Amino acid sequence: MTGAVIIAGLGPGDAAKVTPEVAAALDQATDVVGYIPYVARVAPRPGLTLHPSDNRVELDRATHALEMAAKGARVVVVSSGDPGVFAMASAVFEALEARPDLAHVPITVLPGITAMLAAAAAAGAPLGHDFCAINLSDNLKPFALVERRLRLAAEADFAMAFYNPRSKSRPHQFARVLEILRECCDPARLITFARAVSTPEQHLRTVALAEATEDMADMRTVVLVGNSATRRIGPYVYTPRSA
Amino acid sequence: MTGAVIIAGLGPGDAAKVTPEVAAALDQATDVVGYIPYVARVAPRPGLTLHPSDNRVELDRATHALEMAAKGARVVVVSSGDPGVFAMASAVFEALEARPDLAHVPITVLPGITAMLAAAAAAGAPLGHDFCAINLSDNLKPFALVERRLRLAAEADFAMAFYNPRSKSRPHQFARVLEILRECCDPARLITFARAVSTPEQHLRTVALAEATEDMADMRTVVLVGNSATRRIGPYVYTPRSA
Repeated sequence: MTGAVIIAGLGPGDAAKVTPEVAAALDQATDVVGYIPYVARVAPRPGLTLHPSDNRVELDRATHALEMAAKGARVVVVSSGDPGVFAMASAVFEALEARPDLAHVPITVLPGITAMLAAAAAAGAPLGHDFCAINLSDNLKPFALVERRLRLAAEADFAMAFYNPRSKSRPHQFARVLEILRECCDPARLITFARAVSTPEQHLRTVALAEATEDMADMRTVVLVGNSATRRIGPYVYTPRSA
Repeated sequence: MTGAVIIAGLGPGDAAKVTPEVAAALDQATDVVGYIPYVARVAPRPGLTLHPSDNRVELDRATHALEMAAKGARVVVVSSGDPGVFAMASAVFEALEARPDLAHVPITVLPGITAMLAAAAAAGAPLGHDFCAINLSDNLKPFALVERRLRLAAEADFAMAFYNPRSKSRPHQFARVLEILRECCDPARLITFARAVSTPEQHLRTVALAEATEDMADMRTVVLVGNSATRRIGPYVYTPRSA
């Protein structure tokens, strides 16, 4: 039997946003590995072993997936959203680099609807022109690099999407992010806080930068910052194509 | 009958990458509008009128969709990829701004798998850390703004995705983009040219910046530029989570 690792994106939460190819990969899997709440989204069935694991053990999880596949298992590594955006795809390739003995395992990445694009769709089209995506977590990089990228992104007048804006272990950094934005952008700049997008708990709130406060974001929030031309039209927020 | 406009992303080409909610919206549509090759991806059926239109008439098409919905039609505006990324969502809101008489039409945006994320998945995980998306077309903005964003994105060490890198009417600008990248980045910087991703004509090619030439991109290509840490591992290209 030939094993394989398939790194699949489950989308932001709603089953109607899971692509058919991801659903088919899950149907054919022998093993599913991933962070506990994402594995919980996969229905149990005979012949499928679920391997939920804790946060921050991405490399161990990735190595485990490669090892099982080397023994013939058809392993699906699940991520929320898209696995290539601040998720498991890079972790699997990092694990592979450390284990040349597993280089023969076939790896496929199946894209998913990433949180920022689901949030943008729910808000209107705030990422409708040039934009950037920044992971605000400093678990794996210095916060100084986050600050530097924020300032340059503002100077470039990119719309911005922030992943992992705030966590229990980093309660104050998002306040610093808002400070930096206030130094670089007009107070009227629009910010959308999109929590639990596409789930029953979805909550969207758009405010001017001057009114934004750090408690508007939590671990389940993706934050979208407009560019200088982003505006409201009725209940929608959008960025025109010309700016 | 209550009309509505649904702006839906068809993904990059493969039917297995169309989300169930987009498929359901197409099943319930009375009218589908969009650029000719995208409307061609929708199966005709009794009760559905297809309205294919030419490129560069996005505002006319958007207004037409809003007008039909105001008369009770259930109109799906189709985009390739994700409608919020350099596609029809912003055009519909621009059209709405010009037509306050149509402000009552309900508008929903359904996300799709955008080209850069399908291309990244096919290559490995080159957008696995902070990245930006830039539309290289100067149809609607001055090329000087493209140049400025490119330089700042390189300074920020973002991975980058370029949409619309090259067209018949702009054959030489992509050569200029490569020149700018060569001024800002190491010659070993990896660039992936991903053509017709997820279709039978898919072709991926990754080269060092020093070897990249303008003819490697065409209208159907999305270009992914790694950051300074992006590397190859076996047949894959990926950006580590720490850079």
